Amino acid sequence: MIKRLCIIGVGLIGGSLARALKAVHGCEEIVGAGRSSKALDEALALGVIDRAETDLARAVAGAEVILLGVPVGAVEAVLRQIQPHLAPATIITDVGSTKGSVVAAAEAVFGCLPPRFIPGHPIAGTEKSGVGASFAELFQQRKVILTPGADADPQALETVRWIWQQAGAEVCEMSVRHHDEVLAATSHLPHVLAFTLVDTLARLEDHDDIFRYAAGGFRDFTRIASSNPQMWHDICINNRDALLLMLKRFSHELDCLAEAIATGDGANLLASFERAKAARDSYCDKHSSP
Amino acid sequence: MIKRLCIIGVGLIGGSLARALKAVHGCEEIVGAGRSSKALDEALALGVIDRAETDLARAVAGAEVILLGVPVGAVEAVLRQIQPHLAPATIITDVGSTKGSVVAAAEAVFGCLPPRFIPGHPIAGTEKSGVGASFAELFQQRKVILTPGADADPQALETVRWIWQQAGAEVCEMSVRHHDEVLAATSHLPHVLAFTLVDTLARLEDHDDIFRYAAGGFRDFTRIASSNPQMWHDICINNRDALLLMLKRFSHELDCLAEAIATGDGANLLASFERAKAARDSYCDKHSSP
Repeated sequence: MIKRLCIIGVGLIGGSLARALKAVHGCEEIVGAGRSSKALDEALALGVIDRAETDLARAVAGAEVILLGVPVGAVEAVLRQIQPHLAPATIITDVGSTKGSVVAAAEAVFGCLPPRFIPGHPIAGTEKSGVGASFAELFQQRKVILTPGADADPQALETVRWIWQQAGAEVCEMSVRHHDEVLAATSHLPHVLAFTLVDTLARLEDHDDIFRYAAGGFRDFTRIASSNPQMWHDICINNRDALLLMLKRFSHELDCLAEAIATGDGANLLASFERAKAARDSYCDKHSSP
Repeated sequence: MIKRLCIIGVGLIGGSLARALKAVHGCEEIVGAGRSSKALDEALALGVIDRAETDLARAVAGAEVILLGVPVGAVEAVLRQIQPHLAPATIITDVGSTKGSVVAAAEAVFGCLPPRFIPGHPIAGTEKSGVGASFAELFQQRKVILTPGADADPQALETVRWIWQQAGAEVCEMSVRHHDEVLAATSHLPHVLAFTLVDTLARLEDHDDIFRYAAGGFRDFTRIASSNPQMWHDICINNRDALLLMLKRFSHELDCLAEAIATGDGANLLASFERAKAARDSYCDKHSSP
């Protein structure tokens, strides 16, 4: 059991983890911290946290584990604020969608990735934001990727792993670089495409009429375009290289497809659609129900 | 009540309409027609149709209404086959996702769009195909767009409208050109993007690993990439001009976004994401639950 967990940034992810840990009595005390006392009051009222602090020095004092639930663009500033107040035994982890940038932030503040700082990323979420949208089951049967450094403290790694397992997640490890490449492909690129599609249509003259005739497929396809813009801005900026590489590959394929449509090259078009359907159906068969 | 409805192509759409009409006793007899006797046998066994015909001449004989449920690429060939066997009073309609190409097919076969041919398109469907996936409620509270010609027979138009209303749909009318532009934006472009994304990822070396870490957002975003490749091939080829125009606009916006990411132009990125989220949230508020 964790004696005191400090969650800095009690939003959808931080709030859901707090709820999950409370459900299994995994923590003696959960301290919620952040800039917005309104969000913290909501978290307190919902029973998601036991204590709220807007002062980060007070928030981290005596914490066994600190979890950073802030957007990745805010990680370095938060680390800089808490750094003077950290006890040597304190374990730090985070939930950021980009791991290279989080490691770089830690290096900028501490000179290296501290052995008791275990970067993490739960592959879970919804298009909603804020503690009001949090729920204890968010991580059930979801993957959590940890990207510990070569010098990671085994006990700190085990503790962070234990926390996510208590929330029902399957924990795995990979390198920072591989994480950022995989997530650029399966998460960051799709979000950019969804935002771009909706923005493209919203800028058309007759956009009201266009949205009126959108069907269920459009609703599913664009769900992720209802995600938090600031959070996704941070992710794009902080996983720039891997994301740009994926964008380049995608744009190239899209150009080839447009060329096939323009020239009536049906064979190429059909082959691409068939490969996509086979891959998607096979992924759904393997990794859960359709 | 329709005395005899002939559905040529008893798949997801044709089968669902047949089920819906049976549920409200809207037809005395539903004749299913198509090339595949296996699919027709399945439709018979499921009670979706009353009679099956692989011979189109026999299928359309005595039909009050003929509904073409075949992929848009097959419309002209089917019209050519049934043309010699049509009674003057017979009403024809279709469910194709591209209306310009259907009107062109009718003009190629009949010399003009016959007044009793009312092109139609139900804005409904799933990523599944075939009569086995059909269900009577598919069109409940969905829009059906009719694109009647200037010389459309009012009684034929009224009959087609009545059929879809029996299935629970909201029927509206627009020009062929406007239909094709609106659908290129909200349906054809998203499908092309989803197919292209999945194909792009499937062609990466470590695609198995990549799909393993895909989350719920990816599943929703790519659902439409599990759609029928042949049907979408036909749609892309048959709505080429409107689709290419939308692809061009999208690619331009995507290039601008990639440039903003590359240069760290966060303000532009954030503005685009915010516009997209606002448009998508507002569309969901207006047009049904999220």
